[in-house]
Amino acid sequence: MQKPVSPPRSAKATQDAIAQLNAAFGNRVVTSQAVREQHGNTVTWLPNEPPDAVVFPQSTADVQQVVTICAAHGMPIIPFGTGSSLEGHVNAPRGGVSVDFRDMNKVLAVHAEDLDCVIEPGITRKQLNEYLRDSGLFFPIDPGADASLGGMAATRASGTNAVRYGTMKDNVLALKVVMANGEVMTTARRAKKTSAGYDLTRLIVGSEGTLGIITELTLKLAGIPEAISGGICPFPSVDACCKTAIETIQSGIPIARVELLDPLQVKAVNTHSKLDLPETPMLLVEFHGTAASVAEQSKRFGEIAAEHGGGPFAWTTKPEDRTKLWEARHNAALANFTLRAGAQMIATDVCVPISRLAECVSETQADIAQSRIIAPIVGHVGDGNFHLTLMIDNTDADEVARARALSERLVERALKMDGTSTGEHGVGQGKMKYLQAEHGAPALAAMAAIKRALDPQNIMNPGKIVAL
Amino acid sequence: MQKPVSPPRSAKATQDAIAQLNAAFGNRVVTSQAVREQHGNTVTWLPNEPPDAVVFPQSTADVQQVVTICAAHGMPIIPFGTGSSLEGHVNAPRGGVSVDFRDMNKVLAVHAEDLDCVIEPGITRKQLNEYLRDSGLFFPIDPGADASLGGMAATRASGTNAVRYGTMKDNVLALKVVMANGEVMTTARRAKKTSAGYDLTRLIVGSEGTLGIITELTLKLAGIPEAISGGICPFPSVDACCKTAIETIQSGIPIARVELLDPLQVKAVNTHSKLDLPETPMLLVEFHGTAASVAEQSKRFGEIAAEHGGGPFAWTTKPEDRTKLWEARHNAALANFTLRAGAQMIATDVCVPISRLAECVSETQADIAQSRIIAPIVGHVGDGNFHLTLMIDNTDADEVARARALSERLVERALKMDGTSTGEHGVGQGKMKYLQAEHGAPALAAMAAIKRALDPQNIMNPGKIVAL
Repeated sequence: MQKPVSPPRSAKATQDAIAQLNAAFGNRVVTSQAVREQHGNTVTWLPNEPPDAVVFPQSTADVQQVVTICAAHGMPIIPFGTGSSLEGHVNAPRGGVSVDFRDMNKVLAVHAEDLDCVIEPGITRKQLNEYLRDSGLFFPIDPGADASLGGMAATRASGTNAVRYGTMKDNVLALKVVMANGEVMTTARRAKKTSAGYDLTRLIVGSEGTLGIITELTLKLAGIPEAISGGICPFPSVDACCKTAIETIQSGIPIARVELLDPLQVKAVNTHSKLDLPETPMLLVEFHGTAASVAEQSKRFGEIAAEHGGGPFAWTTKPEDRTKLWEARHNAALANFTLRAGAQMIATDVCVPISRLAECVSETQADIAQSRIIAPIVGHVGDGNFHLTLMIDNTDADEVARARALSERLVERALKMDGTSTGEHGVGQGKMKYLQAEHGAPALAAMAAIKRALDPQNIMNPGKIVAL
Repeated sequence: MQKPVSPPRSAKATQDAIAQLNAAFGNRVVTSQAVREQHGNTVTWLPNEPPDAVVFPQSTADVQQVVTICAAHGMPIIPFGTGSSLEGHVNAPRGGVSVDFRDMNKVLAVHAEDLDCVIEPGITRKQLNEYLRDSGLFFPIDPGADASLGGMAATRASGTNAVRYGTMKDNVLALKVVMANGEVMTTARRAKKTSAGYDLTRLIVGSEGTLGIITELTLKLAGIPEAISGGICPFPSVDACCKTAIETIQSGIPIARVELLDPLQVKAVNTHSKLDLPETPMLLVEFHGTAASVAEQSKRFGEIAAEHGGGPFAWTTKPEDRTKLWEARHNAALANFTLRAGAQMIATDVCVPISRLAECVSETQADIAQSRIIAPIVGHVGDGNFHLTLMIDNTDADEVARARALSERLVERALKMDGTSTGEHGVGQGKMKYLQAEHGAPALAAMAAIKRALDPQNIMNPGKIVAL
């Protein structure tokens, strides 16, 4: 890793930049300690590093002006959605200006025939789906948190139904991006596919604000399924869960969600949501289609599960029952506080080829036990992606050290299995140290070369993904 | 557009490079006129620009050596698969070395549980599917030609079933790439998804050899569907075809193929394949799933078609009948010679939002008539992508001029409708001139900056996509 190349910015440069921002944006620039700290928010063990100021733009032109002022003073620019990212993405290690998209949350167009919409980056996925409700369409990506769509694109988010609908990389058609030189780049047209040059859309998706700032998104939408069936199935082992998921997918059943909960996670969910699920490895599944096809899919899934010793598989198409089940899953994180009240919750994720998932989860469970950490596991098993939720006492230095070591071994284990250090949370600050081992020097050099080419001053969310 | 920045290479540099290649590769370097011209092959009206030599590598290390020798002499390197690209992708406007992947055509691994495989770039899609046949898996992308998978990735190919399975961008998990500095970059791990840094896989897919040379691909595979139904449905108008396709997709029917043929194309297919299809706008469709689900999908499609005046919709699950139908579609290009024996065939493509497709096709039909050109239309209507196949007398300067003007207006029309200059053929040399209008200056500047950052000498397939 190289040391930062940009010279330290003078205090005067920061003051001058903020003065110019004040002149341009008035009370839409905030420098209070509380607001600044809130914008360096991290829900990890990374320290809070607040920006020097927070700006609330209302248009792409506003963002251009922020970038122009910042560029003139060497000020970093850190885009901010809802602050739900998990790896220090919104921290400001070199100070700078946090650009909060709270006021840029409009739906600009819905093209029902084309199954797409054009939105501003600050709208959250729940707000968008609320807006779309009467159109018969929805935006399927569901990372759990009610994140902003701009943030979801920037971190290449996915979640529970990526197995069917893909990740943000698959669901962004085009982006409008303010580049480091203040120009507005449009990455693509609204055509559903193109071979016209480099895939700038995919380059920006997952770049975490380090190459440019997203100010508009064109997203693919899906039709709300005519019927949805959901169910829950206990298994004798994690291995049986994984084998069932693999066979389900291999046999072409277009499963929409297939979530693994380990026994500790089931216990937490039971307590929190007042359920009495058997405390064994468990799959929560969902099927989308016509009434006939979801019934067929559910039946066949139950048969495959039974072949692996799973069951009974209880499923339903009743919305209220499905909702109860998925609320329990969505509240899994919150439920973990029933395992240890007052703990600090640290969420991490890795992703491995699905053939290695059972082995990776089982080894991790053994490691958790040996590390004496309370850490339930949930997994998007169809993608080979799983989460460890560490419930730690952050005043206990020894426990924190054990938890950190556990997390590091988790990543090393995933990499050994041809997996990735993060399936959906992103790199931010927290996972930069793994990229060399994951991608190798030539790929990291290519990332750095691209970063330097598009942001020679290193002002776009510096200190994330690639160290310059 | 800038002029080339690289200084002209001396004849001696070329001779020295070829001498070094000869020393390293012996009879796997060929400089005969016939072989060189064949490797500058274009099936368009672009002139043939042969390379100085052709090399047949057998490994990634061989390709590294080729690049190292070429880099030392400022020699361009042009990757070559089967030569079926359509926009001059394999031409050598500045001379150089064509790297023919004929001998790198092995399947290196099939991971059935993970639904992926690892292959060398020279294997063609039919060879791969032949290899996979007994595994119950297949690689779904079908651009018509039996192209090499390396070439398909490089041009971001797609084809008839992209509506269900996506394009190459959606089906490449990871790539091994020899970069301009001779280093081997691995773009990603085998995990099904990742948020670990810039999406180098998607950056290389569609970059047409201008950023690096693909020497290994990890591809997603799909399970061979349990049942397939296929059918054909005549319509009173192109508009009715498009509306039917839109409603089918909106209602969540996972249609696997939906191909539009215009009346002239149907006529050609009838003559060539000895069929007696009604010479009206026509949809050829295919559904993949279980026996019950393909029956349900077919039935519902027929209902939607009928609502738009289409029908009768004849469908079958019998493989021999389906094969006959799709062979007719796959031979559509060849069939066009029944419209004009001895003509030169020029294929071009654009893609627009599906809501604009009927309008774009109809305006184009009128333009064809007015231009007095024989040009049937086929379209991947589910994606808004269609092809014009110009059957021209290339000795008739006036006709060639009219055909060129028609093609240019086709692109302009697509761009006006928020579409792209090429949905699946790629940019090559032929469509470079449209990129500025399509993407705008900031996006083109970003592409050029990335090109310069990763290939500062401009030796990787220069003169394609971005002009440096």
